[in-house]
Amino acid sequence: MHTAAFLRLISPEEPQKFANVHKIFGASNVTKLLNELLPHQREDAVNSLAYEAEARVRDPVYGCVSAISFLQRQVERLQKELDAANADLIRIACNDIQAAGLQPPPAAPPTHGGGAAAAGGWLGR
Amino acid sequence: MHTAAFLRLISPEEPQKFANVHKIFGASNVTKLLNELLPHQREDAVNSLAYEAEARVRDPVYGCVSAISFLQRQVERLQKELDAANADLIRIACNDIQAAGLQPPPAAPPTHGGGAAAAGGWLGR
Repeated sequence: MHTAAFLRLISPEEPQKFANVHKIFGASNVTKLLNELLPHQREDAVNSLAYEAEARVRDPVYGCVSAISFLQRQVERLQKELDAANADLIRIACNDIQAAGLQPPPAAPPTHGGGAAAAGGWLGR
Repeated sequence: MHTAAFLRLISPEEPQKFANVHKIFGASNVTKLLNELLPHQREDAVNSLAYEAEARVRDPVYGCVSAISFLQRQVERLQKELDAANADLIRIACNDIQAAGLQPPPAAPPTHGGGAAAAGGWLGR
């Protein structure tokens, strides 16, 4: 695959996309990278490179790593909120059982997902 | 800043880190990029470039964009679970109010976060 073929993978209506990829990765680096892939993988690879390049042009210090950090924090916050909501539901269920004069069941009542999700840890910086 | 100075920003104990950045972005592209930054921003930039480069070496098709997709799906799933847990808490609170023969309050009872978080939308592919 030559650089011209790489160019064809980026739509001619998207000159900025090509300019970003060219600026951040360099056409020859991208051509080398695409040559190591199977033909059917190349379009996805060009799209992900274009996404990364655009993010780096917008934020030259952190690039798309800032999106990863933002999403990691969002996952951690949501997980904490979900854990708190599930704890409330468990407490309410236990109170209802006690109010009805029953023994609590051996297993905790069903709750909404959570707990097992591995939040964070993507960014080993 | 010359390529030698860029090299110094990557610890000599991390030859693989340098090799990845060199392979994916090219030393001259990175040097150009770093020269457009303020000196105190360069170490963070090198670290984020090294993170992206390592992700691209591990996954040449999607690079760190796969981490973004994974985290976006995680955020969407957690947001749905949190919405469901909050809906349960609201239903229980309304039932308690009705059981006590009171009028429900004009505003919904406090719930755990959620609802307003903008899940997804990062990846405009």
